[in-house]
Amino acid sequence: MPYYIGDVIKDERSLIARTPEQFKKSGIDVLLKTRAEQVDHEARIVRLSTGATLPYDHLVVATGAQAVMPGIPGQDLPGVFTLRTLQDAVRMKSCIREKDCRKAAILGAGFIAMEMSEALSNLGMEVELIQRDTVAIKRWAPELVEVVLRTFAEKRIAFHVDTRATSIEMVDGGKLRIVTDRGNIETDLVLIAIGIRPDVNMAKELGLAIGDSGAVRVNAAQQTSVEGIYSVGDCCEVYHRVARRPLYFPLGDIANKQGRIAGRNIGGRPAVFPGIVGAQSFKFFDLELAATGLSEEEATRYGFSPAAAIAWGPPVARLMASEEDGETGLKLIADRSTGLLLGAQAVGRKDPVKKINALSVALWYGARLDEPAFMDFAYSPPFGGPWDLIHITAQLLLRTL
Amino acid sequence: MPYYIGDVIKDERSLIARTPEQFKKSGIDVLLKTRAEQVDHEARIVRLSTGATLPYDHLVVATGAQAVMPGIPGQDLPGVFTLRTLQDAVRMKSCIREKDCRKAAILGAGFIAMEMSEALSNLGMEVELIQRDTVAIKRWAPELVEVVLRTFAEKRIAFHVDTRATSIEMVDGGKLRIVTDRGNIETDLVLIAIGIRPDVNMAKELGLAIGDSGAVRVNAAQQTSVEGIYSVGDCCEVYHRVARRPLYFPLGDIANKQGRIAGRNIGGRPAVFPGIVGAQSFKFFDLELAATGLSEEEATRYGFSPAAAIAWGPPVARLMASEEDGETGLKLIADRSTGLLLGAQAVGRKDPVKKINALSVALWYGARLDEPAFMDFAYSPPFGGPWDLIHITAQLLLRTL
Repeated sequence: MPYYIGDVIKDERSLIARTPEQFKKSGIDVLLKTRAEQVDHEARIVRLSTGATLPYDHLVVATGAQAVMPGIPGQDLPGVFTLRTLQDAVRMKSCIREKDCRKAAILGAGFIAMEMSEALSNLGMEVELIQRDTVAIKRWAPELVEVVLRTFAEKRIAFHVDTRATSIEMVDGGKLRIVTDRGNIETDLVLIAIGIRPDVNMAKELGLAIGDSGAVRVNAAQQTSVEGIYSVGDCCEVYHRVARRPLYFPLGDIANKQGRIAGRNIGGRPAVFPGIVGAQSFKFFDLELAATGLSEEEATRYGFSPAAAIAWGPPVARLMASEEDGETGLKLIADRSTGLLLGAQAVGRKDPVKKINALSVALWYGARLDEPAFMDFAYSPPFGGPWDLIHITAQLLLRTL
Repeated sequence: MPYYIGDVIKDERSLIARTPEQFKKSGIDVLLKTRAEQVDHEARIVRLSTGATLPYDHLVVATGAQAVMPGIPGQDLPGVFTLRTLQDAVRMKSCIREKDCRKAAILGAGFIAMEMSEALSNLGMEVELIQRDTVAIKRWAPELVEVVLRTFAEKRIAFHVDTRATSIEMVDGGKLRIVTDRGNIETDLVLIAIGIRPDVNMAKELGLAIGDSGAVRVNAAQQTSVEGIYSVGDCCEVYHRVARRPLYFPLGDIANKQGRIAGRNIGGRPAVFPGIVGAQSFKFFDLELAATGLSEEEATRYGFSPAAAIAWGPPVARLMASEEDGETGLKLIADRSTGLLLGAQAVGRKDPVKKINALSVALWYGARLDEPAFMDFAYSPPFGGPWDLIHITAQLLLRTL
């Protein structure tokens, strides 16, 4: 019988869709408020926080990730949050309501930081983002990020780049002060969203091999280096088909796939996880941002010689274009030596995910750049021109290779 | 110097974006109101309707297509239109304005018929479609077409299937009467949109090989069977990568690509046209319809053993789903013998073209069905669930193969 051992904080609410009783009917025991304290893999027994022990044949380590903390004084003050668990969100919501928060400051500028800046701004709060990097929103090209920065300005969200928070202090009236190397920011609430790292504490106790990325190393069957132990989700690596190596890529859709693959292998219907191409997206007000494959920087790091081109086009045929739809910016990256497509980034109001999903499939199959330059898409004027933005950008880049 | 010889009717307006003088600056002579009366390919000379002759090295036959006529009495009456040239559209618009048309009947139910039913309905006209087939909107599965039929009903557009027009008559007050085997329909305007066929008159005079489809046979360089003569666009065939044979597939985006390939080969920068996968789409009020690859019927015709599955899902994560967004229906078709993906069809308000474009790339690379079942897409809740509708449908179909 498969077991699911939940940790204390997270599960009561995240399992709300199905109760332990409902799982039981499917032959799954769900132990809530129960922590796996220790695992004896030789004896194949888990010692639980309840004192009981649990025998197993297969063990799945799915310990997830932890929020990275900046390691500055005051990071644990009340009113300072991370956003990793449902409970984190519940606590933050209560705080906003109870303290009637008007101002929020966010450390970081990744997916979570961007999405939360929108959510908090939509609650009527004044929001400021504080980022160490000089470049706003890594991975996307500066030309594409321009569009996002315009939205920041329109929504009156301050975005401080090249700014380092050195401490957080409690000030009068329950307010918080973030001290940075470029001045102080007073706020009601601080969200720390500077990244996550794999939670490999149990993996290390079990002696599982850890990859260069710092996450648990797994093979295509989601097996770790120790026979009988699998790992899935945000605590383990995933094979990146474009980079041609395992990387740490903690995203929800990947975790779902890995879980299914591990389950099939444990259940006796062998399956391999074919890897990822690095597809990702987020919504920011009326903008879509999506990317896939490698950025130029990553491509260089992995031994390619990247060249890139950017083109812009409306999400409909030019004759039908409107101010409201705007234009989509698409950047393609290819390898000068092999002509292989390496990556793509897009920003716009309607089309980025559409373009990036198609290009993700191309990357999946190891596309050469001349292939997307003439590929067959479902053309109709309400959905684009006879030359799709993908064709146009690929042909532009082909001419410069 | 390249020449473009326009036929009498079409060009004055379709070249409106650039005048012959502007073309001249790019070294292109555009001869308007000039017909190529006869070609002597041995002497490499075209005799023009102006009496002049024109020498050439390379000849491109791009004679396009003609509207198929039903061959019934009255099909040439005033008020009966086809929609093939810009001039056709101009004439139809004049007629609607001058006769203050309130009712339109359309023979056919293809892309043009559907799109025109929307356009005429949006002008406030009462519209009826008359189709011989018992099945509404071929190629898309009946379950998906249901959604379209609901839109017909909402928009009060009558859709008569299994109905054969036998003649069109002029009746009192300038009205027209369509006589069918299921009763008469009175109307102000008739649009014949039952299909097109390649215009191969000149091709036949030149002795060019004609394919089984009835269109000009071309190789991947767009060369015909006669050295020095190329053919592109709606008069010639195109290689279908899934059917693995040349087919007649007269769509604008394909014609554009073929034109560029022919131009490159003539200009001395050899290029091959890599073929199509049959991607197509159209908008019908707030619906998108898109398809790619082969239908089950086509797959059977070309020697495959098709199996199919349909799944439905919202264009956002389920927790964010709204009545307004509706659900997208996706049908996948795969070959039982090889497990190869063969085709896909989708209908919905937001996602069909997105899904079909990604699946078109998969078909382009000869995807096996288990590949799209685990492919990497740019997941984020505003754009779908962690299991994309493509994953879900592919896994559903995999279980039945």
